Amino acid sequence: MTIGVIAVLKIQLDKTDEFEAFFTELSKQIRANEPGNLAYQLTKSRTEPGTYKVLELYKDQDALTHHGGTDYFKAAGAKFAAVLAGRPEIEYLDGVG
Amino acid sequence: MTIGVIAVLKIQLDKTDEFEAFFTELSKQIRANEPGNLAYQLTKSRTEPGTYKVLELYKDQDALTHHGGTDYFKAAGAKFAAVLAGRPEIEYLDGVG
Repeated sequence: MTIGVIAVLKIQLDKTDEFEAFFTELSKQIRANEPGNLAYQLTKSRTEPGTYKVLELYKDQDALTHHGGTDYFKAAGAKFAAVLAGRPEIEYLDGVG
Repeated sequence: MTIGVIAVLKIQLDKTDEFEAFFTELSKQIRANEPGNLAYQLTKSRTEPGTYKVLELYKDQDALTHHGGTDYFKAAGAKFAAVLAGRPEIEYLDGVG
């Protein structure tokens, strides 16, 4: 079953350029190395400055579990910590159809 | 620029089977006919019964505009009206990277 993820990330307003730069690199690694990842797109709120939403799709739970365990994803933890303005909100959703 | 959409749909609890069936057919038509649509996935909340979220990605605004104007999307309006429990909430997001 496809799994969807919506990750809401609030970034410090003076760190958004730094965040967008490293997240773009991270996204490239995910797309290049994870065949079970069907979509991984950073987006930016049109109404709330500093608020980003990552839209993610995985072909199944195994693909999502693999994603979280990759070296590049774990290595990004310190970079996230330097730019986040609050705790990320991650919602997991069950694919239908 | 990639455009993301998160559509939150609240469905009447006794109509979820009917909704999932017609939405699955609609998704197939979108994927088959819209090269500018990069992702179109219905998902279901794990915590709120009857709440669905559609994760959508388009390669640009033109692709999103085209999507909304297709005959099959417009024809689905009456089917949505019969199963919705409230007004849909649609968020448009600007792709980054």
